[in-house]
Amino acid sequence: MRIGIGQINTHVGAIDTNTTKILQRIEDAKAAGCDLVVFPELAICGSSPLDLFWRDGFVEACQAALDRITAASAGIGVIVGGLAAERKQAGSNRDNPSSLSDGALINLYNRAFLVEDEAILGHVDKQHLASYDVNCEGRHFTSGEGTSVHEFRGMTVGINICEDLWIDDGPTDLQASLGAEWIINVSASPFYIGKYDIRNRLAARRTKENNVGLIYVNLVGGQDDVVFDGGSFVFDPKGRHVFQAPHFREGLYVVDLNHPKPVRQEHSSDIADVREALVLGIRDYVRKNGFEQVILGLSGGIDSAVVAALAVEALGAANVLCVYLPSEFSSADSHEDADAVSKNLGTVFQIIEISATHRALRNALPDSPTGLVDENLQPRIRGTLLMALANQHHALVLCPGNKSEIAMGYNTLYGDTVGALAPIADLYKGQVYQLAEWFEELIPERIRTKPPSAELRPGQRDEDDLPPYEVLDPILKQVIEANASKRQLLEQGFDEAIIDDVQQRIRISEHKRGQLPPGIKISPKAFGSGRRIPLTNGYHD
Amino acid sequence: MRIGIGQINTHVGAIDTNTTKILQRIEDAKAAGCDLVVFPELAICGSSPLDLFWRDGFVEACQAALDRITAASAGIGVIVGGLAAERKQAGSNRDNPSSLSDGALINLYNRAFLVEDEAILGHVDKQHLASYDVNCEGRHFTSGEGTSVHEFRGMTVGINICEDLWIDDGPTDLQASLGAEWIINVSASPFYIGKYDIRNRLAARRTKENNVGLIYVNLVGGQDDVVFDGGSFVFDPKGRHVFQAPHFREGLYVVDLNHPKPVRQEHSSDIADVREALVLGIRDYVRKNGFEQVILGLSGGIDSAVVAALAVEALGAANVLCVYLPSEFSSADSHEDADAVSKNLGTVFQIIEISATHRALRNALPDSPTGLVDENLQPRIRGTLLMALANQHHALVLCPGNKSEIAMGYNTLYGDTVGALAPIADLYKGQVYQLAEWFEELIPERIRTKPPSAELRPGQRDEDDLPPYEVLDPILKQVIEANASKRQLLEQGFDEAIIDDVQQRIRISEHKRGQLPPGIKISPKAFGSGRRIPLTNGYHD
Repeated sequence: MRIGIGQINTHVGAIDTNTTKILQRIEDAKAAGCDLVVFPELAICGSSPLDLFWRDGFVEACQAALDRITAASAGIGVIVGGLAAERKQAGSNRDNPSSLSDGALINLYNRAFLVEDEAILGHVDKQHLASYDVNCEGRHFTSGEGTSVHEFRGMTVGINICEDLWIDDGPTDLQASLGAEWIINVSASPFYIGKYDIRNRLAARRTKENNVGLIYVNLVGGQDDVVFDGGSFVFDPKGRHVFQAPHFREGLYVVDLNHPKPVRQEHSSDIADVREALVLGIRDYVRKNGFEQVILGLSGGIDSAVVAALAVEALGAANVLCVYLPSEFSSADSHEDADAVSKNLGTVFQIIEISATHRALRNALPDSPTGLVDENLQPRIRGTLLMALANQHHALVLCPGNKSEIAMGYNTLYGDTVGALAPIADLYKGQVYQLAEWFEELIPERIRTKPPSAELRPGQRDEDDLPPYEVLDPILKQVIEANASKRQLLEQGFDEAIIDDVQQRIRISEHKRGQLPPGIKISPKAFGSGRRIPLTNGYHD
Repeated sequence: MRIGIGQINTHVGAIDTNTTKILQRIEDAKAAGCDLVVFPELAICGSSPLDLFWRDGFVEACQAALDRITAASAGIGVIVGGLAAERKQAGSNRDNPSSLSDGALINLYNRAFLVEDEAILGHVDKQHLASYDVNCEGRHFTSGEGTSVHEFRGMTVGINICEDLWIDDGPTDLQASLGAEWIINVSASPFYIGKYDIRNRLAARRTKENNVGLIYVNLVGGQDDVVFDGGSFVFDPKGRHVFQAPHFREGLYVVDLNHPKPVRQEHSSDIADVREALVLGIRDYVRKNGFEQVILGLSGGIDSAVVAALAVEALGAANVLCVYLPSEFSSADSHEDADAVSKNLGTVFQIIEISATHRALRNALPDSPTGLVDENLQPRIRGTLLMALANQHHALVLCPGNKSEIAMGYNTLYGDTVGALAPIADLYKGQVYQLAEWFEELIPERIRTKPPSAELRPGQRDEDDLPPYEVLDPILKQVIEANASKRQLLEQGFDEAIIDDVQQRIRISEHKRGQLPPGIKISPKAFGSGRRIPLTNGYHD
């Protein structure tokens, strides 16, 4: 049995484009002698269209796409993720316009179809809907019911969808008990650090527990704040890893189930994975939104240097415009360092002085600005200039904010937060330094070693305003990723005054995070759509 | 039987403050001779704490609050909305850190407790979780199971929670069939236009269908992008409206169920309701976030004039700072009109010229800015100045954007979109004019009649750039609130070229809406947390 793994990069909502890609891969699979080709969850519409599911005509367009795919299945089996809808019989809140506009009268299913020889042989609906983190499937879908297996060319297969694989005593176990020899899981599973190992452990456990093989087919590509990493794989019924598709690259990968070869585990570094995720996330965000070029302010510091290096890797140096926007507080080192990064990367480098505008703003204000008020003027001028350049060049601005400063509100809203995408928004400052090591030939050593500074006042350093990052980052991780309370942080040995300061600053900067561009998720818990904290919040612990 | 309706304004996460308020109302109810006092859904923690539910210690703090409430129930029955949690037995996705940090091992229940004489007599869990529009209860809660009724001082009552009342053949019907004489529904139901009538029709239907009375107790107060409007009521088993609490005002309202008096329906105008909702929404957002003062740019146009009038009604004239920020394109009329609004409202009026800063920015840019690039500089200067003033005065900036311009992207990100709150973001332009009529003594007639203009270039008018609002608003309403496709819009008789332009502009401005301050929901479908459209979106219909 030859299986084609259609690890494709879809475009949310671009149903025709996705379908054309699927049809092409079906032809490739036929040419490669495959019995069956498998595409990811929601491959037809991309993941996730969110409230587009409810747009008049959306489900019908997906149905028409499925018809095209079915018509192309002569001589080959195809498993593809799509949609199905039916009118609801009862129980819905049909008096409330808010619920009606959100599909209250429709049951929508996240469905995988099995087709062959121009006919639909069967389908399976997702049973366990993911409603945690960035997922809100309960908003759109009804849970499927019943467990089934399918006979395909002499093999008994159990098809299930993403989350259904992860549930103990769930669909996989039931399908195995119904005689499935192979489980085929179609997924749209986003990347975060360590996810490969987590999936591998799960796959080894599920297959051994149930004496069943697993073909896991994952989506690839960036979509707003998440990157699907692909990395489809096969485990045999003995729990051995017998096939591994590349991460972050689309393609048709062919596996012969009759001739399994144990996969040699390659060592993969967390930060190397992050680099790949961010590069793909930047490239797909920019291009799928119809742009080619990006602009960013190079400050001479590490954050913008890393973002520039990632952008060049994603889009090519010709598509990255670096702008140095010095003020009276910018050091000669900063100028040199920004210039060096841009030269090393081979990008255009522009210099725009902000002092004259700064003076004009200071003069315009009735009360002469001091302290933070005056400091905030400077990044806002830079933001305005970058947006003007972006308008002129039909380019997107990249925001250089990192997770540590975003958590602490150590940024200026409408200033250094400006941009269409914030590529390193989910990297703690320590991780930014780690990532910079991967660009050591491009990012001068001084940038990687000098003390960080926003350079908004003479002699300013981050450490005057924040706890040292090696202290701060672990506290932030506990609070953001583990919902830690003060009591727990004290038990973990953190200093009480620092805990209080950090918790307070996270709380009062929620409104800033509400107005940031999307980041790219690389941790189990990023800011953005996966973390929903009220702005108005009287909770102190 | 005397019932106290504890229609309170809670503060999300401020568990101690809310509990103190509940205890005070219990004492008031005792003093008023009530048998039972009823508080809204999630009254203990406010609605909605969202991911704060998962913070270590949050559920325990709610439990401790319930203990205080129970201890205060000597001689009186109390129904109060709170939380309960239990460890999950199986089925959870315990391999995925993203799900673990989101409470994968816990079943959390949205629970109403019935207590009396220092003991918990019973509880009911919400069964139908709202996961549409602004609601994401499936993210946090597990559905309750089983239907129960309670005996209380000789009366059989069925307690249920918010959405459970709205479901046909749902908990209300089952409780009636189990002998409930009265349904007590505790809600946290947000306002939108027409909601009073929708609730009344539902209440009349449910009570008549089941020959059961209904005591409906709703939360009051603003929380970020929603306003809970209170308006608690009682319908008798014959479907007659026998009690109505005020909208938008907290208080303890006492009803004697033995002496029902039909309520005289007062005519309420939609826009009058909107005015009350926005005033409360502004006041609560500002004050619950620890501020007293707001700042806004008065342009001389209608949007900012209406926002200023609302702010003065919410916070008092002394707490509203109006700033006129003219450029070379600002007309003498605009200056006069802005000045007149401020004078009429009695606020401070400041004038800050932006031309010098505009020149400085123009000179700083390597390529002289023209067209839209140059136009965008001006609102961004204004945004920067307003934020500086806000920093100086410890005030919040109010954003004057309306739903029509936000839908069309007819605004400048980081410019006129700047602010902590956008009070009229859910009002189409036509509704802004309607609302202005309610302030006719405060807003000069010229503002209410002159053609709208952003004044970013000589002689600019909105109608040069957009379809006339009387054409635009109905199309927008169809697309935003009814998910209308092009086919449907054509069937409704709209012009094809205008449809294409509007749909295209809505689509390409999604990224701007992703970075706006919260608006205040007054329609069934507002932008913001209740509408989730991907930024990267290839869907055209």
